[in-house]
Amino acid sequence: MKKVGVVGASGYTGLELIKILISHPYFELVYLATSGGGEELEELHTSLQNIYNFPISKANSKEIGEKCDLVFLAVPHKTAMEYVKELMEFPNLRIVDFSADYRLKLETYEKFYTKHINPENLEKAIYGIPELFRKEISSARLVANPGCYPTSSILGILPFLKYVKSGTPIFIDAKSGVSGAGKKLSDTTSFVTVNENIFSYNPLSHRHAPEISEKTGLENIYFVPHLIPVTRGMLSSIYFEISEELEPFEILKEFYKDEIFVRIRKNPPQIKDVAGTNFTDIFAKRDGKILYISSAIDNLLRGASSQAVVNANIMFGFPEESGIPKIPTTP
Amino acid sequence: MKKVGVVGASGYTGLELIKILISHPYFELVYLATSGGGEELEELHTSLQNIYNFPISKANSKEIGEKCDLVFLAVPHKTAMEYVKELMEFPNLRIVDFSADYRLKLETYEKFYTKHINPENLEKAIYGIPELFRKEISSARLVANPGCYPTSSILGILPFLKYVKSGTPIFIDAKSGVSGAGKKLSDTTSFVTVNENIFSYNPLSHRHAPEISEKTGLENIYFVPHLIPVTRGMLSSIYFEISEELEPFEILKEFYKDEIFVRIRKNPPQIKDVAGTNFTDIFAKRDGKILYISSAIDNLLRGASSQAVVNANIMFGFPEESGIPKIPTTP
Amino acid sequence: MKKVGVVGASGYTGLELIKILISHPYFELVYLATSGGGEELEELHTSLQNIYNFPISKANSKEIGEKCDLVFLAVPHKTAMEYVKELMEFPNLRIVDFSADYRLKLETYEKFYTKHINPENLEKAIYGIPELFRKEISSARLVANPGCYPTSSILGILPFLKYVKSGTPIFIDAKSGVSGAGKKLSDTTSFVTVNENIFSYNPLSHRHAPEISEKTGLENIYFVPHLIPVTRGMLSSIYFEISEELEPFEILKEFYKDEIFVRIRKNPPQIKDVAGTNFTDIFAKRDGKILYISSAIDNLLRGASSQAVVNANIMFGFPEESGIPKIPTTP
Amino acid sequence: MKKVGVVGASGYTGLELIKILISHPYFELVYLATSGGGEELEELHTSLQNIYNFPISKANSKEIGEKCDLVFLAVPHKTAMEYVKELMEFPNLRIVDFSADYRLKLETYEKFYTKHINPENLEKAIYGIPELFRKEISSARLVANPGCYPTSSILGILPFLKYVKSGTPIFIDAKSGVSGAGKKLSDTTSFVTVNENIFSYNPLSHRHAPEISEKTGLENIYFVPHLIPVTRGMLSSIYFEISEELEPFEILKEFYKDEIFVRIRKNPPQIKDVAGTNFTDIFAKRDGKILYISSAIDNLLRGASSQAVVNANIMFGFPEESGIPKIPTTP
Repeated sequence: MKKVGVVGASGYTGLELIKILISHPYFELVYLATSGGGEELEELHTSLQNIYNFPISKANSKEIGEKCDLVFLAVPHKTAMEYVKELMEFPNLRIVDFSADYRLKLETYEKFYTKHINPENLEKAIYGIPELFRKEISSARLVANPGCYPTSSILGILPFLKYVKSGTPIFIDAKSGVSGAGKKLSDTTSFVTVNENIFSYNPLSHRHAPEISEKTGLENIYFVPHLIPVTRGMLSSIYFEISEELEPFEILKEFYKDEIFVRIRKNPPQIKDVAGTNFTDIFAKRDGKILYISSAIDNLLRGASSQAVVNANIMFGFPEESGIPKIPTTP
Repeated sequence: MKKVGVVGASGYTGLELIKILISHPYFELVYLATSGGGEELEELHTSLQNIYNFPISKANSKEIGEKCDLVFLAVPHKTAMEYVKELMEFPNLRIVDFSADYRLKLETYEKFYTKHINPENLEKAIYGIPELFRKEISSARLVANPGCYPTSSILGILPFLKYVKSGTPIFIDAKSGVSGAGKKLSDTTSFVTVNENIFSYNPLSHRHAPEISEKTGLENIYFVPHLIPVTRGMLSSIYFEISEELEPFEILKEFYKDEIFVRIRKNPPQIKDVAGTNFTDIFAKRDGKILYISSAIDNLLRGASSQAVVNANIMFGFPEESGIPKIPTTP
Repeated sequence: MKKVGVVGASGYTGLELIKILISHPYFELVYLATSGGGEELEELHTSLQNIYNFPISKANSKEIGEKCDLVFLAVPHKTAMEYVKELMEFPNLRIVDFSADYRLKLETYEKFYTKHINPENLEKAIYGIPELFRKEISSARLVANPGCYPTSSILGILPFLKYVKSGTPIFIDAKSGVSGAGKKLSDTTSFVTVNENIFSYNPLSHRHAPEISEKTGLENIYFVPHLIPVTRGMLSSIYFEISEELEPFEILKEFYKDEIFVRIRKNPPQIKDVAGTNFTDIFAKRDGKILYISSAIDNLLRGASSQAVVNANIMFGFPEESGIPKIPTTP
Repeated sequence: MKKVGVVGASGYTGLELIKILISHPYFELVYLATSGGGEELEELHTSLQNIYNFPISKANSKEIGEKCDLVFLAVPHKTAMEYVKELMEFPNLRIVDFSADYRLKLETYEKFYTKHINPENLEKAIYGIPELFRKEISSARLVANPGCYPTSSILGILPFLKYVKSGTPIFIDAKSGVSGAGKKLSDTTSFVTVNENIFSYNPLSHRHAPEISEKTGLENIYFVPHLIPVTRGMLSSIYFEISEELEPFEILKEFYKDEIFVRIRKNPPQIKDVAGTNFTDIFAKRDGKILYISSAIDNLLRGASSQAVVNANIMFGFPEESGIPKIPTTP
């Protein structure tokens, strides 16, 4: 059993992570922290009463470094790199960071986020989509866990990368459940605002667009996210011109033939069928030289916590699906 | 007061239509029918108890022709043209047809729907988007009320029509509330299927695509509709390349400067803000030579019943906004 | 036309009130205020863009007293009595107060809320359920507009008051849409908390219980409110023992035979059928000497804003239904 | 490993049952049937694609009797007893029946349901609430799995049974998610009907009332169920007079101190916290001699499928929590 710590226990992704770790066959939770500390897990997440309890510490890098073989950082960007900077001093500690701090090239990061305080570790970080960087993850000390929008988008685009018509725009119209916005109170995520509603936000200027762009090598990403009245789930619709009249289903089947956590669908996927799991469900259809791809994930799991644990499994050489949720909550 | 009949009182659009007509200043409901007849309105729509009652007849063209100055047909395609064929024999009767039967050119119609039984009247029918064909509507005897998807899409595209890059694909990613699917029971519209879910249906092959294509003259329409877990409201996201670096807000403002029922938005529109009204809220944003348009309507009102009454107002020379709902249900 | 002011324009009830006043035949909006002021209505409630605009003042009692014949106070309790105290100095001004400040006897108020700063006007205030105090309202200068829970509960109980078995407990199990909690951000009203959930809050200790008790004269009110995942609407289920085997439907019909805004239902009411209106829909059923009553209202309208305008109509001798919304948003 | 069959694979409870059995440590699925048969599980429930597949047979009692040690019948009442009658001929087969057919005394059953065709086995059937009949279940051949409403109600009432004031009415106001109504299409369970709505149905005359009555021995059960706009979850509010001023929390704690699947709550329970699990969360509060109990379950799991598997675990002497879902889906 590897000893595991979690920093950021209070948010939605923190909770999902803890729920996975509770019954993981190879990871043992030994450290749980928030910025404030001082509670019990059962108080913080009353849904876990009688199921699992654990004291919550005030996050402390030294303690993590001494106690843990692995730490998950489920904290906001900027805060994350402050921890990583200190934690990377412990040579036997492996880190999976949920934030954007180590996902992008320095220049891209500083353009879209803020000044980076730890550029030296940026180069050591591996972007944690197993289907893209499995080998690199297996020897990484620091994995930058991807954003939810990029995960669903990149997995949809990857199989068709070599068929993208040169220079053509890639349109991504994405729809996310409200849990993706995190637990922080805001008018935008109040029930009355979201219920019976749909709207886009940050159209053509969301910070996940450069992440998609950098990881696919596609420059012309036009990305528009929407908030939909569901708690969890994310659907990305991707549209672009292709260079030849390919058979999308066959290409998808072949490309992902060895992947456990990608399901190729004969009909448009539903977020309900992936909710509660690490699956990405993908469907594609072609009309002439136009391609439409629909890619569905659970934004909190494949878009954050379960993908993080898959990455950790790979880092330690454990079977990839160890402890990973596979049974959807449907209906 | 003009005497008005409604055929198809039982569906959602029939109900919305009746609710408008109840307090219309120039139209008086004199005839209400379903295919079966024999009930009272209060029994059919118990929400109207103590508000308004009326006997429901078994639909009969002769009776309509003799009693009415105007009839609304809120019945499925194919059934509609059977009525229209008979009703056009009454030279003083005006007709607003909610179905697809008179919206398209014969060839297009027969390709996407079924054999047309009344092609001679097809040419007399005017497509009922007032912003597009106001003048023609004013002298029409038969108005083909548009589909909900085409209404939201066309109104979004129109102002930019001359800026569309030649031959470029137009992508429309549309999201509809469940009432758009009508009252007929189906697994797809059951609560358990729709709730906490989103999915596309008939991607790249929905019958509203040729309608958008024909009315805008744009051949390369790629249309993907989605069902979202809301009762009413529709949001269409439109993406395409343009020929020059225009200012979308200014173009929208100028194009719709005389229109009562189009609101130009500085931020992405919300379906909640148009629900309960005939408004179309439009927002557009440009990135280089890429344009993103977001267009929101109430699918049952601007997408059907209130637009139908606006058309009828125009046909009779009444002020366009007479009796038309303008106050959104928000919150 | 009577000149009307509104203090508290930013909340949900403020918005609903404004929406009614926009098209009221006898009231003219001349003053609109929030605690801060300095905006335009269209900015505060963007849903009203192109529909109605008005400058928003910083609330000032002197200005109200000089400009208005009538003012609605849609502000929290405690704040309300500060205004009322000042506003009652203007002898020609009539006031409808949405808060709890003038609903209860002094002793009751101070037990459940806070110290009262204006007890002298407490006795002049009339409790604004027209079905209960129509006559008194017609000559009132100050109307205390009832809470939403009390409105739905009291209207359900009233017809059976004389049949309540002496000393028996009255159980009220009420379910409210989230808009009833107001616009203030809280974890309890965030989408993720409320969606796919239901729970009671303040069971047996909600402050609306003494209000119901005082107005019905029933001492043994046991009241448990629940939050349900809908935006608007409230359903109160009421259970108690009765003294004889009465016919509930007949009693309801007779009791409310002259009331416009109460509908007696043959089947359990649905909140959807009253949403958007001032109606109260009531159903009752008896089993032996046990009575079950189900009472549905729109919490923001009959539970606040439209009932307030009905009260104002009565205060000025206008027909009670003047400008009052009667058409439900169903479906 | 015990060999297990499931009849009724197509419904919501059938799906939940299969999801539990897939990873059960002691039960091995060897037979899966619907009334029609002839499909694969992955086709019937596409959410299970790539997770688990199995051929679906046309239900046949002989085949079940020969292949299985245990069979779950997730079929409607009346159909169930036809199978049970045949299946009880196989002396080594154990049966868990989800229907109402073996839950009630003959007289009660025939009064509220239909004529019983298999009264001889009725007496052998044990009612499957483990907290009530654990010992009897352990030696039962036939377990009648309880209804969802009775499960949540009975578990709430049980600890207070001896404190119920003699002859006093017990009011149960229950709220259920829509999945409880099953998969059959109906206007009542369509999205447009349920969304933004709440209403009671069969008030004071639902067939679960006699079930609660018979199992608690309380004659005066007044039961009113409501449909709420959530997919899964059930909350029962129970109100009655008690004989003494007890401490509800202490009584609950003591009564359920050895029970794994009952959690005593300090605050009113939320259905979200039990969704996805076999837990029953209970809260109670007293005011004088009035008691309010709030009891929450997942209607498809504790209200059907997971409770069925707990019963099966007990029947075979396996640890009760074997394979039973304990981690809630929250958020």
